[in-house]
Amino acid sequence: PQSKLPQLGTTIFTQMSALAQQHQAINLSQGFPDFDGPDYLKSRLAYHVSQGANQYAPMTGVVPLRAAIADKTEQIYGWRPDTDSEITVTAGATEALFAAISALVRPGDEVICFDPSYDSYAPAVELAGGVLRRIALQPPAFSVDWPLFRSQLSTRTRLVILNTPHNPTATLWQADDFEQLWQAIAEQEIYVLSDEVYEHICFADQGHASVLAHAGLRQRAIAVSSFGKTYHMTGWKIGYCIAPAVLSAEVRKIHQYLTFSVNTPAQLALADMLRAEPEHWQQLPDFYRQRRDHLARALATSRFEILPSQGTYFLLADYSAISSLNDVEFCQWLTINAGVAAIPLSVFCADPFPHKLIRLCFAKQNATLDAAAERLCRL
Amino acid sequence: PQSKLPQLGTTIFTQMSALAQQHQAINLSQGFPDFDGPDYLKSRLAYHVSQGANQYAPMTGVVPLRAAIADKTEQIYGWRPDTDSEITVTAGATEALFAAISALVRPGDEVICFDPSYDSYAPAVELAGGVLRRIALQPPAFSVDWPLFRSQLSTRTRLVILNTPHNPTATLWQADDFEQLWQAIAEQEIYVLSDEVYEHICFADQGHASVLAHAGLRQRAIAVSSFGKTYHMTGWKIGYCIAPAVLSAEVRKIHQYLTFSVNTPAQLALADMLRAEPEHWQQLPDFYRQRRDHLARALATSRFEILPSQGTYFLLADYSAISSLNDVEFCQWLTINAGVAAIPLSVFCADPFPHKLIRLCFAKQNATLDAAAERLCRL
Ligand SMILES: CSCCC(=O)C(=O)O
Ligand SMILES: CSCCC(=O)C(=O)O
Repeated sequence: PQSKLPQLGTTIFTQMSALAQQHQAINLSQGFPDFDGPDYLKSRLAYHVSQGANQYAPMTGVVPLRAAIADKTEQIYGWRPDTDSEITVTAGATEALFAAISALVRPGDEVICFDPSYDSYAPAVELAGGVLRRIALQPPAFSVDWPLFRSQLSTRTRLVILNTPHNPTATLWQADDFEQLWQAIAEQEIYVLSDEVYEHICFADQGHASVLAHAGLRQRAIAVSSFGKTYHMTGWKIGYCIAPAVLSAEVRKIHQYLTFSVNTPAQLALADMLRAEPEHWQQLPDFYRQRRDHLARALATSRFEILPSQGTYFLLADYSAISSLNDVEFCQWLTINAGVAAIPLSVFCADPFPHKLIRLCFAKQNATLDAAAERLCRL
Repeated sequence: PQSKLPQLGTTIFTQMSALAQQHQAINLSQGFPDFDGPDYLKSRLAYHVSQGANQYAPMTGVVPLRAAIADKTEQIYGWRPDTDSEITVTAGATEALFAAISALVRPGDEVICFDPSYDSYAPAVELAGGVLRRIALQPPAFSVDWPLFRSQLSTRTRLVILNTPHNPTATLWQADDFEQLWQAIAEQEIYVLSDEVYEHICFADQGHASVLAHAGLRQRAIAVSSFGKTYHMTGWKIGYCIAPAVLSAEVRKIHQYLTFSVNTPAQLALADMLRAEPEHWQQLPDFYRQRRDHLARALATSRFEILPSQGTYFLLADYSAISSLNDVEFCQWLTINAGVAAIPLSVFCADPFPHKLIRLCFAKQNATLDAAAERLCRL
């Protein structure tokens, strides 16, 4: 059949993980840990399954999980979303992003995003008939040029999509960025989709700046998060979004026909975990800072130049001193010849992205990071 | 914000389950069992979680599950889909339906469905910009008038959506219906979305007629199924679809950005279950026939007229002798005043549906069915 998305290939994560497997490379490409989640969380899942909590969850999510999310949100960002009307549990953050875009973007609407941008945004906008305006950010800071941003707004602008801590660049939005965004859009009916799945993996002293901490923006925003990254369980596929009741109602109209509801016993187990061990997410920055520093140290003698990582479980490495290949070719070469898989950055950009940067995932055991670094130091 | 789906309310299943809970009614509305799934399946989930199978599954589903689906499909329908390119595991059948519709329906395309039709089809078609042509079927047989069907085809027809065993009417398509469909569409580039989530709950001697058993149609069809109904685990949310490689490729383009992948340990547990206990699904018709007959017998002295149920875990009851309320009002009245929640049929129809029919779910323990029947016999 004629394709609705003729330009679209298989996501880079699937491609690189497959190539890594094929060549038995150490896989620092697709973002997932090579260690397991908390024992308590696992035992609670087994418990709820054994107790027969195996039928449909409510469409919006089980009450204990939504209540625990409300508590955590209040504790961190000083504002409490309403459990009933403002929190929706989804099949991972990916479903929340897709549902939010489907709910808000009408044919012909313009949507602003910042490149490099996570690869699920554009196809969702395209399917909704929206027109994407991609603002290219420049390394190493990848910070938004706010006058440029304002010049991209039009009467058709409907939605701004942002991501902080940012995958793949490992940079952060500051509170001031959110204020700049608010100043730029306050007068117009423009919504904000804030992808914050790495909210608990932020290395800055001042912590993660969330759209939910901005009293103006959160009236217009859908904030998306997930438990996959926070609990080292990327395969459980439980995410959620927080939005004002009127926006949540629109997201739920889509969610109820996209997946209807989300795995019941896993939701209940996560609710137990959030209650019982808040120290898990509180300690997560330290946990991942150690891994980040371990990899960066191990690569210090390599010819890669390591960029600072302020959040996520990724860091960028510049390979200019090693190869003149473009980043896609270099990642293939690296996987096949050096035995380490990484993610090229240009695939997240619409404009040519001539920089020689690759993304490495450090959510791995030290032994894995050491083995990868040893291979990378040989280049 | 202006709604993309302004006509759309909350799904009837959520509405009726909430009303049932509010009035402590026996809930025969939303379709889910009040008994638990197989112990072996539950123990395998706990096993895989404990073994650390908690990271992203492959985007298309874990290999052992796709292989087990291929085996079962071959065993039942005499044709084996290709594990790699023709089977995609999804977040329940709901995601598969949405992804299939998103992948195939372009703005302005016409889509034919048969009313009463499951309530997720129309919003998905609307979001894709498609135009739905709903062919109304008439009780008690709800069979397709094939000359009428052919008269509804146009050069813009892109997709036909069908469902067998049929929810909510509990009727079946016959092999001859599929042949009629094929004769009608063979010459044109029209695709078929066949919702077969109740494939293992079919009471006919000849068994379930699947689109996959038709050598012509299966080249054009996306067949959707699920494990929620088969294993009494509606809350696990694992479904799948089978389609030719070229169609699967388009569905996967959507799936990879809708949810990306599906709960890993649950997929592995289902693969184990399919291999270890094929008798589970083989015995399912008998298992549910007993429940169906139990409820029908218990209602024999009531003033409801019970229509024959040939599949699904629902049966229709005509309440003409009891009330002149319309079906929506009657279901509310029944929940509040008789303490039994049921589903009205008119919500699945675009045209006025003046029949006095409600849907009762018999996927319940005998004690539940008896208690509900006792209340219903008093009317
Ligand atoms: C959905 S697979 C990709 C995981 C991820 O978020 C990443 O690697 O960036
Ligand atoms: C997705 S909730 C509804 C379950 C169901 O399929 C039904 O009751 O018809």
